[in-house]
Amino acid sequence: MRVRMKDIAARAGVSETAVSLVLNDKPTRISEEKKKEIKKIAAELNYRPNMLARGLATNSTKTIGLIVPDLENSFFASLAKEVSQILYQDNYFTIIENSNDHQKLEFSLIEELINIGVDGLLIALSNESFLEKEKVIAHLASLSIPYILLDRNYQELSCDQVYFDNRRGGYLATQHLLELGHRQIGFLKAPDYIENANERFLGYRAALEEYGVEFSSELVATGDYKFVGGYEKSLKLLENKKLTALVTANDMMLFGVLKRAQELNRKIPEELSVVGYDHSQIAQMYPIKITTIEQDVVKLSRKACGLLKNNLIADKQRYDNQQICLEPKLIIGETTIGVDSVFN
Amino acid sequence: MRVRMKDIAARAGVSETAVSLVLNDKPTRISEEKKKEIKKIAAELNYRPNMLARGLATNSTKTIGLIVPDLENSFFASLAKEVSQILYQDNYFTIIENSNDHQKLEFSLIEELINIGVDGLLIALSNESFLEKEKVIAHLASLSIPYILLDRNYQELSCDQVYFDNRRGGYLATQHLLELGHRQIGFLKAPDYIENANERFLGYRAALEEYGVEFSSELVATGDYKFVGGYEKSLKLLENKKLTALVTANDMMLFGVLKRAQELNRKIPEELSVVGYDHSQIAQMYPIKITTIEQDVVKLSRKACGLLKNNLIADKQRYDNQQICLEPKLIIGETTIGVDSVFN
Repeated sequence: MRVRMKDIAARAGVSETAVSLVLNDKPTRISEEKKKEIKKIAAELNYRPNMLARGLATNSTKTIGLIVPDLENSFFASLAKEVSQILYQDNYFTIIENSNDHQKLEFSLIEELINIGVDGLLIALSNESFLEKEKVIAHLASLSIPYILLDRNYQELSCDQVYFDNRRGGYLATQHLLELGHRQIGFLKAPDYIENANERFLGYRAALEEYGVEFSSELVATGDYKFVGGYEKSLKLLENKKLTALVTANDMMLFGVLKRAQELNRKIPEELSVVGYDHSQIAQMYPIKITTIEQDVVKLSRKACGLLKNNLIADKQRYDNQQICLEPKLIIGETTIGVDSVFN
Repeated sequence: MRVRMKDIAARAGVSETAVSLVLNDKPTRISEEKKKEIKKIAAELNYRPNMLARGLATNSTKTIGLIVPDLENSFFASLAKEVSQILYQDNYFTIIENSNDHQKLEFSLIEELINIGVDGLLIALSNESFLEKEKVIAHLASLSIPYILLDRNYQELSCDQVYFDNRRGGYLATQHLLELGHRQIGFLKAPDYIENANERFLGYRAALEEYGVEFSSELVATGDYKFVGGYEKSLKLLENKKLTALVTANDMMLFGVLKRAQELNRKIPEELSVVGYDHSQIAQMYPIKITTIEQDVVKLSRKACGLLKNNLIADKQRYDNQQICLEPKLIIGETTIGVDSVFN
């Protein structure tokens, strides 16, 4: 069994806190003689301090809480993996939590993590929290420990934030199709309250406008941001023979579209060009290379961990909150093709 | 801001532990008058006890640690999601950790979780830990808190274990192909040290033997258990024109095989029947329905949480360790077809 601080405390006849103070060379009233004895016992027992033990003396548990909305979404699974690896290298222990996209559970998790004594939080808010934006912002503003907002930009909130430019991503996806000559471009959007997805839709509209293409609500449908919604809501779009291209607000819905297209025997990309969003793990295992928008999760994780570390060591009075906006990137695959090919 | 136990303690002029004991109706020497005062203050402040606060009095933090090897593998992502939901309903807070398939990190995580004060552990060991089986078993046996082994069966270890019958799964996959008339059936296996995957291979061999089909090492290749390995190692198998069917040790490698088959223009299932293993999330979004072996992650999660709860309340002296073996299930999709069709 591992030697613990309490074992040393018991042998030396002092408290655990005393042992912690001595081993961390912190000021204490303990006699020099006793200090030597404690250090000798620690050496004899081959004691190796752990993070929480260090925390007793340093007022830091070296523990960080990370909350994500959905671990089954590969973007957040990768985020959790990356963040815990990065922090581990800096001797921080990451506690991963899944809010299951429930705003109330999210609040409970934040509370529990603070109770456990984490030094700081990395929070990727649930989609549900968009519905209670004011309440969520007020709650976050009241937190007593440093936290970083991930994948979300709330300008009303004074804290560090790292997020992607979703409007830019929607623009890039649509621009790619416009450059290929497409003019009848559909968009499979998510429910309006999901602001990140809505920004992508606004990017689509901005690109159309820039290229002088009139927006038509007939070419737009609203899915549930999931596979099923993509499958169900794409039926009407795919039956519209005018449509030569389609952008979806995420990859998940695109997979539903691709399944539906196969059933309708509508050839991709020969009869319809499609662009997804996320460059998800699944996209990378799909039989055809998907054209999609990549959000670099490694970059997001690194920036977020960097900001958090600054927060943990900074003098908050002098610290300026940073809002870091990351650029998404177009990944060109095999699901898009020039419009001429569609009509040949 | 939320009212904390220390706020009540400050107002009542007592310790936090005293407040905890009184609010949890635990035996204490505190006077009835003071007890009433504490409860009145708690009511006035609209105090709601949290898990760790309860722990002060009950010697339980109502916190459970869950360690999985790879959150990017959808099986473990689903496991983490399920387990934390089930435990949350029982007022337990789950700390999710990713060992990144590293055995040393796994040990560190176990240590940190015990230091944090979790009541128990649910551990899905890394594949790397197979390489240090004896060391891992000795370490686990020395743990001072209850723990359940997930997705792994170590008969040498005296603890509760919930796992799937991997040999049965390999058998079911192969039997399905044999019943369809296939006799030249390949197997894309994982490295030998991954025992769960090796059991699947042994199930394949058992099925061949039962149906009087001679085993041929020419029809077997070893991949890395990942997409890349499936793609790379299937080339030689797919070039073997005798082969009419192929089983892979997991879905990930199957996706690599399907990508390769498409490039070689080898039609699935008309020219080759394939069976995967996992019924993964990706399989469910794939353009064609995959024939695969399902391991019910919800059932695994429920059994594991049930056993853990028994462990937490049981008198360990009287408690019999349980080894629960769950049955895998064949899911018939569109990637397998009778052998007659292959030659027509």
